[in-house]
Amino acid sequence: MATNGEAVRVIAGWACPYAIRVFAALKLKGVEYEFLQEPAGRKSELLLKSNPVYKKIPVLLHHGTPICESMIIIQYIDEVWASSGTTAILPAEPYARAIERFWAQYVDDKIAPAFLVLRGLTKGDKDEAEAQVSTALQHLEEAFVKCSQGKHYFGGDNIGFLDLVLGSHLGWFKAVEKIAGIKVLDEAKYPEITAWADRFCAHHAVKEVMPETDRLVEFSANSAVKAKASN
Amino acid sequence: MATNGEAVRVIAGWACPYAIRVFAALKLKGVEYEFLQEPAGRKSELLLKSNPVYKKIPVLLHHGTPICESMIIIQYIDEVWASSGTTAILPAEPYARAIERFWAQYVDDKIAPAFLVLRGLTKGDKDEAEAQVSTALQHLEEAFVKCSQGKHYFGGDNIGFLDLVLGSHLGWFKAVEKIAGIKVLDEAKYPEITAWADRFCAHHAVKEVMPETDRLVEFSANSAVKAKASN
Repeated sequence: MATNGEAVRVIAGWACPYAIRVFAALKLKGVEYEFLQEPAGRKSELLLKSNPVYKKIPVLLHHGTPICESMIIIQYIDEVWASSGTTAILPAEPYARAIERFWAQYVDDKIAPAFLVLRGLTKGDKDEAEAQVSTALQHLEEAFVKCSQGKHYFGGDNIGFLDLVLGSHLGWFKAVEKIAGIKVLDEAKYPEITAWADRFCAHHAVKEVMPETDRLVEFSANSAVKAKASN
Repeated sequence: MATNGEAVRVIAGWACPYAIRVFAALKLKGVEYEFLQEPAGRKSELLLKSNPVYKKIPVLLHHGTPICESMIIIQYIDEVWASSGTTAILPAEPYARAIERFWAQYVDDKIAPAFLVLRGLTKGDKDEAEAQVSTALQHLEEAFVKCSQGKHYFGGDNIGFLDLVLGSHLGWFKAVEKIAGIKVLDEAKYPEITAWADRFCAHHAVKEVMPETDRLVEFSANSAVKAKASN
């Protein structure tokens, strides 16, 4: 059940990992969508109306009805367009679903806040943040071996839920390396994740929506200036 | 597909809301389970082995395989015992699922941390914490009207996902009222939620697992003493 662009709109920002995973999920399912870029430095009326509780991007508008929170949106997409695209995003088997949900939540709990510290956008010890990312990647390296079972993705032969959630941060992996002057994705330490990251970023559903490193570095510098100015 | 007690075990604490929702979900499905009470003040070897990442309760052990994080556990229970008990825990329709997931996450984001402040277990402004709970209940009062559509529960005729997630905090609603000397669940402000709370606590799947207020107050006092001693 592919649909036209009007039926599906995404209020988002091009640099936001939570939005990138939604775009990639829609592309996996072959669903056309309209991207509504949030203005810089303020929140649009449409966003405030669509997500009055958190006032955060991304929001999926499906025939005008808002769905909020990126992981909830991806599950919604998977359930609505169950027979579209290459495959299901979440596996069918309950234990495999639980494992992907567990690690996906872990990624957003550990990697996302550490990156904000490393980008200088939230307070915190940068060495601790770097150590937290490193511990997370060690766990994910092991998780990849278990989940992928020798195949290309956490989801097996195809990109799945955990691939989207971790993969949507990959643009920022490279940008954070430049911003903080550290090595995030060390091939010697995390050979499986490093190889997976290359495959993920080369996938047709991801290539178009994954931002370039230099654009992210510039975006982050502007955000840091704004954060400083508002203190 | 009911099962015997050996097949399903839950590492948990009797006072923990995240555990109470898992117990209630298993009872809804008619699944027998063994409750493995975590010892006070230390973490069991079984817990450390079963949840090495977060080292937190509850953990569901299904034929020995650990599943962690309460909302993930409930979805696992719903998917494994799909045809057991009175009904499905999550609705079938994708939008209804997304809405229950959204408010469930909101409950744990807003109510749970505010209660820790009101119990004196984490630092924070108690007036702000009370206001946060109040705002959350206003949102949930409106959400109840939309989700229940005139029926008894957020899930409609039967207890569903959001019922379990919010309902598992209800023991602490009353305990926090005693501990902090405030009114949490004001019938005049939140008539729908107040009536729902009574129905939820009287349900056969909940009655046995919902702790008594005085026991929770005593438990909290002991936790506060321990927290102070370890500072």
